[in-house]
Amino acid sequence: MRKSAADRFRLLFNNALVRYRHQHHPPSSSSFSRFLSSTSMASDSVFPVTAGNINPKIVECEYAVRGEVVTLAQNLQKELQTNPGSHPFDEILYCNIGNPQSLGQQPITFFREVLALSDYPALLDKSETQGLFSSDSIERAWQILDQIPGRATGAYSHSQGITGLRETIAAGIQERDGFPCDPSDIFLTDGASPAVHLMMQLLIRSEQDGILCPIPQYPLYSASITLHGGSLVPYYLDEATGWGLEISELKKQLEDAKSKGISVRALVVINPGNPTGQVLSEENQRAIVEFCKKEGLVLLADEVYQQNIYVPDKQFHSFKKVSRSMGYGDKDITLVSFQSISKGYHGECGKRGGYMEVTGFSADVREQIYKVASVNLCSNISGQILASLIMSPPKVGDESYESFMAEKENILSSLARRAKILEDGFNKLEGVTCNKAEGAMYLFPQIRLPQKAIKAAEAANTAPDAFYCKRLLNATGVVVVPGSGFGQVPGTWHFRCTILPQEEKIPAIVSRFTEFHEKFMNEFRD
Amino acid sequence: MRKSAADRFRLLFNNALVRYRHQHHPPSSSSFSRFLSSTSMASDSVFPVTAGNINPKIVECEYAVRGEVVTLAQNLQKELQTNPGSHPFDEILYCNIGNPQSLGQQPITFFREVLALSDYPALLDKSETQGLFSSDSIERAWQILDQIPGRATGAYSHSQGITGLRETIAAGIQERDGFPCDPSDIFLTDGASPAVHLMMQLLIRSEQDGILCPIPQYPLYSASITLHGGSLVPYYLDEATGWGLEISELKKQLEDAKSKGISVRALVVINPGNPTGQVLSEENQRAIVEFCKKEGLVLLADEVYQQNIYVPDKQFHSFKKVSRSMGYGDKDITLVSFQSISKGYHGECGKRGGYMEVTGFSADVREQIYKVASVNLCSNISGQILASLIMSPPKVGDESYESFMAEKENILSSLARRAKILEDGFNKLEGVTCNKAEGAMYLFPQIRLPQKAIKAAEAANTAPDAFYCKRLLNATGVVVVPGSGFGQVPGTWHFRCTILPQEEKIPAIVSRFTEFHEKFMNEFRD
Repeated sequence: MRKSAADRFRLLFNNALVRYRHQHHPPSSSSFSRFLSSTSMASDSVFPVTAGNINPKIVECEYAVRGEVVTLAQNLQKELQTNPGSHPFDEILYCNIGNPQSLGQQPITFFREVLALSDYPALLDKSETQGLFSSDSIERAWQILDQIPGRATGAYSHSQGITGLRETIAAGIQERDGFPCDPSDIFLTDGASPAVHLMMQLLIRSEQDGILCPIPQYPLYSASITLHGGSLVPYYLDEATGWGLEISELKKQLEDAKSKGISVRALVVINPGNPTGQVLSEENQRAIVEFCKKEGLVLLADEVYQQNIYVPDKQFHSFKKVSRSMGYGDKDITLVSFQSISKGYHGECGKRGGYMEVTGFSADVREQIYKVASVNLCSNISGQILASLIMSPPKVGDESYESFMAEKENILSSLARRAKILEDGFNKLEGVTCNKAEGAMYLFPQIRLPQKAIKAAEAANTAPDAFYCKRLLNATGVVVVPGSGFGQVPGTWHFRCTILPQEEKIPAIVSRFTEFHEKFMNEFRD
Repeated sequence: MRKSAADRFRLLFNNALVRYRHQHHPPSSSSFSRFLSSTSMASDSVFPVTAGNINPKIVECEYAVRGEVVTLAQNLQKELQTNPGSHPFDEILYCNIGNPQSLGQQPITFFREVLALSDYPALLDKSETQGLFSSDSIERAWQILDQIPGRATGAYSHSQGITGLRETIAAGIQERDGFPCDPSDIFLTDGASPAVHLMMQLLIRSEQDGILCPIPQYPLYSASITLHGGSLVPYYLDEATGWGLEISELKKQLEDAKSKGISVRALVVINPGNPTGQVLSEENQRAIVEFCKKEGLVLLADEVYQQNIYVPDKQFHSFKKVSRSMGYGDKDITLVSFQSISKGYHGECGKRGGYMEVTGFSADVREQIYKVASVNLCSNISGQILASLIMSPPKVGDESYESFMAEKENILSSLARRAKILEDGFNKLEGVTCNKAEGAMYLFPQIRLPQKAIKAAEAANTAPDAFYCKRLLNATGVVVVPGSGFGQVPGTWHFRCTILPQEEKIPAIVSRFTEFHEKFMNEFRD
């Protein structure tokens, strides 16, 4: 049923997927060709560069998290500033993006203390510093400075990142997993996104190369695959079983892709899930590892939400740990684990730090990965320092330990409460069902839209879920992202909403949402 | 003469250039095909990913600044640590890369004060802070925090960078040029390299798209063009006239490329030059602007060394200023200016900050540039803050002004002295001629290698200039980059040496170099 459902709106989803699927079902029209025809006037342009003569992969690429609805929100925000009272709300609530500190979450004190001391090491020689900073932040800053050749925090580092910081991170991974980690497997990056791009760039040679991605997925994957000219091979998560990942579905989609001449190179797994919030069981993970090993696929494990778990019956297990506990070593499974300082309880998005742990590649391929990393010289040192701190936070006995733990637990327990209130709120809405956010930072409710709303959306030349989200924004100031930006079973409609607004604002969001939804349904109910 | 010189070693230079040139002169062998055959064993690999089945553009790409000689240097450094006295030198002197702080240059105090306060704003509420920080750094930190929504230095920003910081940068550009600058033309980036990649990604659709690049060039350009699958169209700088840029040469190469079916899209100009150190005259720049306008080329102006000028008779003029002073506005010339916090007198390489000023693009192309920027969310906020500071340093009357100016002038005047001593030293060596470093951070001397040395290099399966550089490294611990990594007139040999080692070390470098060179010539003189 899923596969045969033809719906012109799924064309709005993403063109990498579209290209893959349309090898056998050419579309009558696509957003890409519509775009090109709408800009064909550009050939008369006074500018030598036009939308018609740039890299078409860029034109094809879509990134909904910062897409049309967000642009609309930014315009509304400007109107609210210049003309207060011009809309039925006082502020824009950005629930479109996992950006905790933009919504008032405070940074972890210890992390920022160490960062300030590393940025301006002259402070370490001043007597006043003892009174201003915790003793363990001072000690850690010294330790980090000693790991940096010449204590030069303003120098390019080794292209994989500062060796000492990679050793700290490797020790943190080892402690997390109970299995060894080699610092030379760590590549520090400006967040997880550049790391994902690097792997796509490495693996994709042409559109005959495919990458298995969950649907729904985080649109970085579809965007990156499109930009690198590959094919997104979708596998559907099962909404009915809490966004379950079924091996039978992986197999079916792999075979289907192969039959179309696609060489599938890698499997992307996002755990905890984005936008779907599920946490995989260890048993499921073992089956995934077995599948990748058997099929010779690189396992690209997006594990950036490893600290964000909200339910007592689920636990995060890294794919590295799972594969090693199955007895599989470096020569049995090719695995890349992505981690980011932007997520977790710390949410240091603006600092752009992260790493990938790269295992199961031959030495000559590793050299090629290093070469690409070296063309950009290195990732930023503040992000590198933060990546080492999140993998090695204060320990029992450190002066900061108790306050650090209190800050961390406050954030995580509040996120869990917010997730629950929003989930319950969504489930009370007519025609809406919402799975639990076991982890990550998002809910991805399904809305069963009336035919009348779908027709109104068609008339407005927009996808039905985008139509709903724009209506919501205009009525409430709440920004969520249409499900079509992530992919969904054709004919179903969703949106992604972060759980990040401050806890005291959550009840108001639920009631504004409820009020809007009732009016919307009253207007469009069939 | 230049064009007909057939030399197998130029194949070692870069494969984008090679691909372009070999459309009419297929090589008997290339480094790429040699690489592939040397790794063909990899098909028996236990690993699913092999050097034979990854993206061939990655295999082709070369980046000499962190290439073979540097890897050798890192190994020597390890040997020196584990076995002191094992080599005829105590330390490795990295003259391969423009990385001032790695060689002992101290960061500018004011910049680091502001950075520390922005990273840990709690300091601003403490009374001790007044005694630890300059009053203008405190004021500036408040100003920056007030420009960031919610004062959230840990939040993702607008994908072009924080609006207020872009306004500061635009004001700095306006002050520099005397012409208006629109903050919405500024895209903040993690250094200049990602900005260059973004433009190459935008402009290159296939290998039929060409980018005019100087030879010698900074290998980021050849690497980026190769990674994006385009063709590097070379234009040669004239060493005899101090690396002069002749419009006749641009025209000739453009016509030659067109005749081969290459659609040339952009002209890269590096001013001040890297690796060549020349500073363009305003008259020359006007002719370049005229050429780009007439030929419909995007002018990609690498202006990252705009603060590094060492001779009294030369001055930096931005291409924006030059084109505006010719009366050309946004619709007359498409111009991208790259700036970086890594260079200048500040040398904040590890902080990864920079911006591009993008003018003369239509609104729909601008949207596409923004979309690509948004897929990576934003550049790091510390780098963004530093980019605003370098374009708006302390002013007369500010508490930091005098100490700031002293730090800045000390660095720049010392760099000028170092450049002169090294230049004079190189010019005294047998068979070596070295143009002046009018600007930037490098010297690019030509070495006339004896035939015997060239034969010895051939026997060692290496380029003659790489042979020389490796010999130099093994004898002295000084790391320089072979000219073949930058491109050079076939049959000529060069190396790039930074002017960055601490001033007190320069005489010793000159004497070690001189001693080595004499021995080398004694061994190989024809």
